[in-house]
Amino acid sequence: MKILLIGANGTLGQAIQRELAPRHDIITAGRNSGDIRVDLKDFASVQAMYAQVGAIDAVVSAAGNLHFGALADMTPELMGVGIADKLMGQVNLVLAGQHVLNDGGSFTLISGVLSHDPIVYGSSASMVNAGLDGFVIGAAIELPRRLRINAVSPTVVTESLPSYGPFFRGFESVAAAKVALAFSKSVEGAQTGQVYRVL
Amino acid sequence: MKILLIGANGTLGQAIQRELAPRHDIITAGRNSGDIRVDLKDFASVQAMYAQVGAIDAVVSAAGNLHFGALADMTPELMGVGIADKLMGQVNLVLAGQHVLNDGGSFTLISGVLSHDPIVYGSSASMVNAGLDGFVIGAAIELPRRLRINAVSPTVVTESLPSYGPFFRGFESVAAAKVALAFSKSVEGAQTGQVYRVL
Ligand SMILES: NC(=O)c1ccc[n+]([C@@H]2O[C@H](COP(=O)([O-])OP(=O)(O)OC[C@H]3O[C@@H](n4cnc5c(N)ncnc54)[C@H](OP(=O)(O)O)[C@@H]3O)[C@@H](O)[C@H]2O)c1
Ligand SMILES: NC(=O)c1ccc[n+]([C@@H]2O[C@H](COP(=O)([O-])OP(=O)(O)OC[C@H]3O[C@@H](n4cnc5c(N)ncnc54)[C@H](OP(=O)(O)O)[C@@H]3O)[C@@H](O)[C@H]2O)c1
Repeated sequence: MKILLIGANGTLGQAIQRELAPRHDIITAGRNSGDIRVDLKDFASVQAMYAQVGAIDAVVSAAGNLHFGALADMTPELMGVGIADKLMGQVNLVLAGQHVLNDGGSFTLISGVLSHDPIVYGSSASMVNAGLDGFVIGAAIELPRRLRINAVSPTVVTESLPSYGPFFRGFESVAAAKVALAFSKSVEGAQTGQVYRVL
Repeated sequence: MKILLIGANGTLGQAIQRELAPRHDIITAGRNSGDIRVDLKDFASVQAMYAQVGAIDAVVSAAGNLHFGALADMTPELMGVGIADKLMGQVNLVLAGQHVLNDGGSFTLISGVLSHDPIVYGSSASMVNAGLDGFVIGAAIELPRRLRINAVSPTVVTESLPSYGPFFRGFESVAAAKVALAFSKSVEGAQTGQVYRVL
């Protein structure tokens, strides 16, 4: 398969690449790295990426930013970071991609454990991750041409503990390589409308 | 209790008012109706509402718009309607309200069944409703001063079948009065971080 991997240079993206590259042709994309430069926040940039990349069989996203911070200090603008980037950025991938992916192709988005297992400072993440899971469930039943869509919802990744660990006390971490298996299941399997929790 | 009810003039809002008014002091709000005029999309308007209403014990929302339409025709702008109105509109109620509600007060937001049981044309609703449920779960563990927050997630309401029925074939509808009970449970009970599904 020809697979477009956005966020390929990140902690998860690198593990996904290691999992899929032996069997597939991977085109990497990122804001400041990869074969193609894209900013998911910008719909025109997403459309330009698809035009540049040509016919593909799968879109895999391991990208997306949001603001972590105290609810007491949250503002519409700070909530807007995650909405524009991790949430609508990945929705943009689907809205534009549904018209260009090869028949039978797939979208795999990244959400996360905070949708249902919250932490302090994580109200924006809980909203954005849950919203992504909901979008996947809703979009799955409307996609044309046997296109599929799933989300991967991991707990905190072991390789990220040096930076995120203090916020996730008591969470058992999971290796990025294990999260990458869920991406493989989504891309190389046949299910749709699934949220794969990796715990 | 002194309860601020946003969307009081709507199908659900009227039923919530009938349930709560015998026991509580209700202040009604809406875009074009009610004691107070507010546009939830506009954070300054939400702040002005709180300033006008003074000390209150509960905020109840039965408001929020979003775009229903085919995924194939969805654009970032059309997805943005629900994000700005039903999702961030209700989040705005909490971001501003957490600083002004009486100790031990509560927020009750409205989401809906499409978060987990999707329909054609409902991808934005699935995203928005799920995002609201996630936000409630995340915010609940950070609210100060014993403030509480819950969501009510109803299936299609019987009184709305004349307009929405054709989109919800096979869904058993629920009377608005039954949905109003979940609002009563949230406001008059003591739970927090709950998503009350009313089916
Ligand atoms: N790490 C964890 O523990 C964990 C757990 C659960 C969920 N997640 C989620 O998984 C995703 C990736 O996490 P990570 O730790 O691997 O992140 P990371 O190491 O920071 O990598 C993120 C990657 O995404 C790209 N990217 C970010 N925003 C983008 C945008 N607007 N447009 C295009 N590319 C963008 C970055 O590109 P450049 O490098 O080129 O800037 C980078 O390659 C995030 O959504 C995160 O919330 C992570
Ligand atoms: N009806 C159902 O079957 C059903 C099922 C599940 C979930 N829901 C959800 O329940 C909520 C209410 O539904 P409904 O059928 O009762 O709606 P409705 O009859 O259209 O009433 C909506 C009410 O909310 C107010 N409102 C809307 N947008 C607002 C904004 N931006 N700022 C302030 N007030 C605003 C309206 O005020 P004005 O009248 O003054 O304009 C109106 O009073 C919606 O979020 C809907 O998605 C409904």
